[in-house]
Amino acid sequence: MTELTRRDLLGGAGMAGAALALGPLAAPAPAGAAAPPAGKQAPGFYRYKVGSFECTSVTDGARTFPMPDMFVRNVPKAEALAAAEAAHMPKGMVTVPFTPQLINTGSKLVLIDCGFGAGMFEQSKGAIGQLMSNLAAAGIDPKSVDVVLMSHLHPDHTNGIRAADGSMAFPNAEIMVPAKDWAFWMSEENAAKAQSNEMMKGYFANVRKVYAGIENRVTRYEWGQEVAPGITAIDTHGHTPGHTSFAVQSGSSKLLIQSDVTNIPELFLRNPDWHVAYDIDPQEAAKTRHRFYDMAAAEKALIAGFHFSFPSLGYVEKDGSKYRLQPVRWSPVI
Amino acid sequence: MTELTRRDLLGGAGMAGAALALGPLAAPAPAGAAAPPAGKQAPGFYRYKVGSFECTSVTDGARTFPMPDMFVRNVPKAEALAAAEAAHMPKGMVTVPFTPQLINTGSKLVLIDCGFGAGMFEQSKGAIGQLMSNLAAAGIDPKSVDVVLMSHLHPDHTNGIRAADGSMAFPNAEIMVPAKDWAFWMSEENAAKAQSNEMMKGYFANVRKVYAGIENRVTRYEWGQEVAPGITAIDTHGHTPGHTSFAVQSGSSKLLIQSDVTNIPELFLRNPDWHVAYDIDPQEAAKTRHRFYDMAAAEKALIAGFHFSFPSLGYVEKDGSKYRLQPVRWSPVI
Repeated sequence: MTELTRRDLLGGAGMAGAALALGPLAAPAPAGAAAPPAGKQAPGFYRYKVGSFECTSVTDGARTFPMPDMFVRNVPKAEALAAAEAAHMPKGMVTVPFTPQLINTGSKLVLIDCGFGAGMFEQSKGAIGQLMSNLAAAGIDPKSVDVVLMSHLHPDHTNGIRAADGSMAFPNAEIMVPAKDWAFWMSEENAAKAQSNEMMKGYFANVRKVYAGIENRVTRYEWGQEVAPGITAIDTHGHTPGHTSFAVQSGSSKLLIQSDVTNIPELFLRNPDWHVAYDIDPQEAAKTRHRFYDMAAAEKALIAGFHFSFPSLGYVEKDGSKYRLQPVRWSPVI
Repeated sequence: MTELTRRDLLGGAGMAGAALALGPLAAPAPAGAAAPPAGKQAPGFYRYKVGSFECTSVTDGARTFPMPDMFVRNVPKAEALAAAEAAHMPKGMVTVPFTPQLINTGSKLVLIDCGFGAGMFEQSKGAIGQLMSNLAAAGIDPKSVDVVLMSHLHPDHTNGIRAADGSMAFPNAEIMVPAKDWAFWMSEENAAKAQSNEMMKGYFANVRKVYAGIENRVTRYEWGQEVAPGITAIDTHGHTPGHTSFAVQSGSSKLLIQSDVTNIPELFLRNPDWHVAYDIDPQEAAKTRHRFYDMAAAEKALIAGFHFSFPSLGYVEKDGSKYRLQPVRWSPVI
């Protein structure tokens, strides 16, 4: 076989049969001769530097689920499914990862967003709720976290402040929330208006449950504020009224933590005018996306995306009226 | 600050100054208040399934070095550097990762290529020679490896069969090499002809050194042969005369291990007619690339690439006369 043919590459019964005839290596090996399978993924953390800051992407996991009918509100479902399939997601399904960022500024250990909470690990059969075990694998003691900084108050970003037993998962941390999101979700008037929308009703109830009894421990921050050393809050509203991104700067190095400027990039960074079901003000969210990515592309800025595939870091490029995410190369050293 | 501006996103002294004026959070925190930096990357292994086979990408590391003048033989250096820079490599530099694949077929534990050898770890300041420590992190005992399968006999693929002290790194493994590569590198006539070319001279000397005294332990395999259960050798010559890729099949699931059909995809998968310095027959190597990627793109085949960024798995798409690599999404579970 000296020609590379389709059959060579793609195998199938024909090739296996032909190969079996070639020699003794194809004979079945004794069962159980090989090492047992490990059955376990590598720990989901990744380290990188931004100037003198040591940063760690720490994933809370990923969910793969049948694409809901209105996952993309303003395009036909078939078109959204085609985009997911073109990105090699399983047919009919969508995969959404969830990845907080941990920034060690040298003086503060800052966790930006905190996942669904370890209580979701069992319920999701290990798919999500991985943050605490991945932090442990990374050698991070939750007691050493100084600040938990929320980009907005959706459950996948905020519920992880509670351990499974309801206690504080990061007992020594200041909890910082965007003032505008806090005002929105804590408004009785807004909550009353949301009762006719099951998704929004759930979100309002969730915020109240998660923050019940700890309202006084929460620091509200404003856009433009340096919320921790070198970490500045940026207005990227639309996804939620107080949705916030962060500029991290150390020396001449920069990182943009986009939070949910998009949901999964395969659909919503590629197609910035597509409206994900979870955007509260989809028109504003789309405007924010264009502004954010136009600037990031022009500056070749490194971006961390909560819903980007782990390690959730990349560069954005303009591609006509669309954008393309170029994931970072994994560096085996830091 | 309610408008997202370039200054918001990209920071700089102006913004930091403005933010400092906003409140007490910007005051310097006490030195040493945060947890100490870890200073260490996560272990470089990644698990995935191909049918019932448990596969593990295990990286040997990556080298970043000034791009040599003839790194791409048939385009001006400025063009090659521009492609590297467009892929966000450091200016003037090129980054090349090295990632063997470990396949547990259930009956055999097969390591495909084995890196530079742990002896290179110190010399490279930890950049390469990581395979053994990453295997250990993945819970793999080198004694449990049944087969070490070489795609070809370049040092980054083959030298890792030797431990730093010269003993066998995988003492119980059968060592399998492509018959055509073995014949090429072991030929005295070829070695004599190579003496005028420093790179080739070094390669010939290396093969002889690495295999000295273990020639009888080496099994030579042919293209088309099922070299281990479900793993079939494919002719992808050009990079070297015996350069081999592998089709891994379990049930209806398939994986193509391309080995060095390209060097780094940012340059040579994107531009399949570019000739990397290390291709022995660059015309044949380019033909192989087109055939391999045309088929892989048509079939949407999962590909592992030795020089792809860790976890070194992706899908290839046609893009006019070029190709584009779409890395897999990291799955936090297997």
